[in-house]
Amino acid sequence: MHPAYQLSDQATIFSPALVFFPALIKQNINRVVEMAGGPARLRPHVKTHKTVEIVKLLLEAGVTKHKCATIAEAEMLAHAGAPDVLIAYPLVGPNIQRACELIRKYPGTTFSALIDDATATRALSATMAAAGRTIGVVLDLDVGQHRTGIAVGPGALALYELAGQLPGLRLDGFQLYDGHNSQPDRAEREQAVRAFIKPVLDLRAAAEAKGLPVPRLVCGGTPSFPVYAAMTDVPGIECSPGTFVLHDAGYGPKYADLAGITPAAVLVTRVISRPTPNRVTLDLGNKAVAADPLLEKRVTLLDFPEYKTVGHNEEHLIVETAGADAYKPGDVVYALPGHICPTVALHHHVLVAEGGKVVGKWDVASRVRTLTV
Amino acid sequence: MHPAYQLSDQATIFSPALVFFPALIKQNINRVVEMAGGPARLRPHVKTHKTVEIVKLLLEAGVTKHKCATIAEAEMLAHAGAPDVLIAYPLVGPNIQRACELIRKYPGTTFSALIDDATATRALSATMAAAGRTIGVVLDLDVGQHRTGIAVGPGALALYELAGQLPGLRLDGFQLYDGHNSQPDRAEREQAVRAFIKPVLDLRAAAEAKGLPVPRLVCGGTPSFPVYAAMTDVPGIECSPGTFVLHDAGYGPKYADLAGITPAAVLVTRVISRPTPNRVTLDLGNKAVAADPLLEKRVTLLDFPEYKTVGHNEEHLIVETAGADAYKPGDVVYALPGHICPTVALHHHVLVAEGGKVVGKWDVASRVRTLTV
Repeated sequence: MHPAYQLSDQATIFSPALVFFPALIKQNINRVVEMAGGPARLRPHVKTHKTVEIVKLLLEAGVTKHKCATIAEAEMLAHAGAPDVLIAYPLVGPNIQRACELIRKYPGTTFSALIDDATATRALSATMAAAGRTIGVVLDLDVGQHRTGIAVGPGALALYELAGQLPGLRLDGFQLYDGHNSQPDRAEREQAVRAFIKPVLDLRAAAEAKGLPVPRLVCGGTPSFPVYAAMTDVPGIECSPGTFVLHDAGYGPKYADLAGITPAAVLVTRVISRPTPNRVTLDLGNKAVAADPLLEKRVTLLDFPEYKTVGHNEEHLIVETAGADAYKPGDVVYALPGHICPTVALHHHVLVAEGGKVVGKWDVASRVRTLTV
Repeated sequence: MHPAYQLSDQATIFSPALVFFPALIKQNINRVVEMAGGPARLRPHVKTHKTVEIVKLLLEAGVTKHKCATIAEAEMLAHAGAPDVLIAYPLVGPNIQRACELIRKYPGTTFSALIDDATATRALSATMAAAGRTIGVVLDLDVGQHRTGIAVGPGALALYELAGQLPGLRLDGFQLYDGHNSQPDRAEREQAVRAFIKPVLDLRAAAEAKGLPVPRLVCGGTPSFPVYAAMTDVPGIECSPGTFVLHDAGYGPKYADLAGITPAAVLVTRVISRPTPNRVTLDLGNKAVAADPLLEKRVTLLDFPEYKTVGHNEEHLIVETAGADAYKPGDVVYALPGHICPTVALHHHVLVAEGGKVVGKWDVASRVRTLTV
C-alpha cells in the first residue's frame, strides 16, 4: 500500500475509522488544477467530502466556484467563504424557501440552482420574487444519463427563455452531467462526450442569438474530467469533478487518465473473528463503508493476501482467503472504500493523519441535512 | 398504504426524511412481548433504531435486557437506564478499554460481551482484572452463519471453561445467532433451528456438568424470532430480534409468521424531475436509504403505480413506470426502506408523527461511534 497510509499509532485508533491524508488531498487538488489549466476552469462538487477543511484547501488553491447537491452542503460552503455556489439539484417543496433564506443569510455568496421543468421554474421564481431575492438558474441538460434534466432541443431553449423572462431568476448557463460516461478507455469516453457536445453548443448559440446569456457550461464528474479539462477549444467550460479530492478504489485503477490522483482516504479496520480456517471477519460493516458497489467491490483490503468478500452486514465484513492463518482477532487492516462519497457520509468525523500518525479530526459537517437553514 | 402514514402537513417536511410512528412502534413492541410470552424472554437489539426514545418505550414495556453491536450503542442504552446490556460483538483493540470505562461509568448497568477466541478472551480478562472490573462473557456459538463465533463442540467448551478460570470475567451464557436462517416458510425455518439446537443443548449440559453456569441462550434475530418465541420447552432462551421494532419492506411481506408487526418507519420523498416520459426521479438517494439490498429491493414506493427501480445514486432514485405522467416535480411520495437498520443510521434525526402529523424529532443518538467513552 501507499507508504503514507501506515500509521505508527494504529493501536490507539478506534475502529472502524476513516482517515484523511491532507498531504495527498492537496496533491490531488494541485493535480486537478493543473489538468484544468487553472482554478478558474473548476467547479468541484463538495458531496464527496462534506468538510469545511477541504473547502478551505480548495479556496486556498484559488478555486472560487463550487457545486453541491443539498441545502446543508450549500450552507456549509457559504459559511466557509465560498463566493459562488451552484446547488446542482432541482429545487422543489420547502427547499425553494430554504434557498431563499440562504441568499438572505449569506450575502457574500452567489447562489444558483438547476432547472429542468417550467412549472418548477415558475415556483422558484415566485418565491424569489416575493422575497425580493434573485437566484441564478442553470439549465440542466440531459445529455444521456436520463436522471434529471431536459433533452437538448427546442424545449430546452424555450425553458431557458422562460427563465429569462421570470422575475427573481438570473440566467447562469447550462449543466451537462454525464454520469453514464464511465468507459475505461479515454478515447471512447472522449468520443462519447464529443457526440453530445455539438448539439449543446448549437443550443448555446441559439440562446445567445436570442440575447440570453449562457455564461458557463458546467461539465461532467470525475471520470469525464480529463476530457473536459483538455477541451480548451470550447469556451465557458467549468469542470465539476467531486470524487478526485479523496479518490477511491472504484475510480483509481479504472481510469488511466486520472494518473497522479491518489486515494487520500483510508479505512482502518480490525479483525474481530476467525470463524473458519479460511475466513477473516473485520469490523468494517455497511454502516462504516458504503454498500452501493457490488459486494466484491465495496472494499479493497490493502497488503492483504488474495481474498474474496463473501459477506457484508451492518457491522461485519467477511472475507475468504487461503492466507487467513496470518490474521488473528485485534489485527489492524487498512482498506480503500469502493465508493468514497457515500462512505464519508457514514462518518460523524474523520481522523486526519500527517507524518504517519493521527493529528486531529474533521467533522463531516454537512452529512446532516440541515445546518441552520 | 397504511392510513397512519398519511401526513396532513407533508408540504412542510424537508425531504428526504425518515418518519417514525410511535403508535405503531408500541404496537410492534407489544406484539413481540406477547409472542415471547412476556418481556423476560426478550433481549432486543438496539442497532435498528439507535434512539433513546425507543429504548425508553422498551423499558416501559418491561424489557430489561438489551443487546447492541457498538460501544456507542452500549453507552446510549446504559445512559437511558437499561439495566442489562450485552455487547453482541467481540471486543478487540481499544474497545476492551472502552468497555472497561463503560463499566466504571455506569454502575447501574450490567455489561457483557461476546467471546469466540482464547487469545482475545485472555486480553479482555487482563484489562478487566487490571482495572478491578468484571465483564460478563457470552460464548458466541457459530451455528452455521460462519460470520463470528466458535463451532459447537469441544473447542467451544474449552473456551468457556478457560473464561471461567480467568479473572475479570463472568460466565453469562451462549449466543446462537442464525442470520443465515431466512427461509420464508416457517416450518423450514423451524427445522433449521431444531437441527442445530440439539448440539447446543448438549454443550450447555456438558458445561453445567463441569460446574460452569450457562444462565442464558441469546437466540436469533427477527426472522427466527417466532421460532424461538414458541420454543418454550427450552429453558433460558432470550429472543433477540432487532428489526421488528420498526420493521421494513424486506421482512414485512416475507415472513407470514411475523403478522401483526407493521412497518413503523416511512420515508418521505419528493419528485425532483421527470427526465423522460416514463421516468420519475425522486430525492431518495443512497445517502438517505440504505443501498445494501439489491437495487430493486432498496425502496418500496407506496400508493405508486407499478414501477421498476432503474437507478440509485447519492441523492437520486430513478424509477420507470407507465404511470409517470401522474407525477410532477414537487409531488410527495411515501416509501418503505428495503432495510431499515442501516437506513436509520443515515439520518441525524428522524421525524416523529402522531395523529397524521409531525409532532417532533428524535436524535439517532448512537449513529455516531463515540459518545463519551
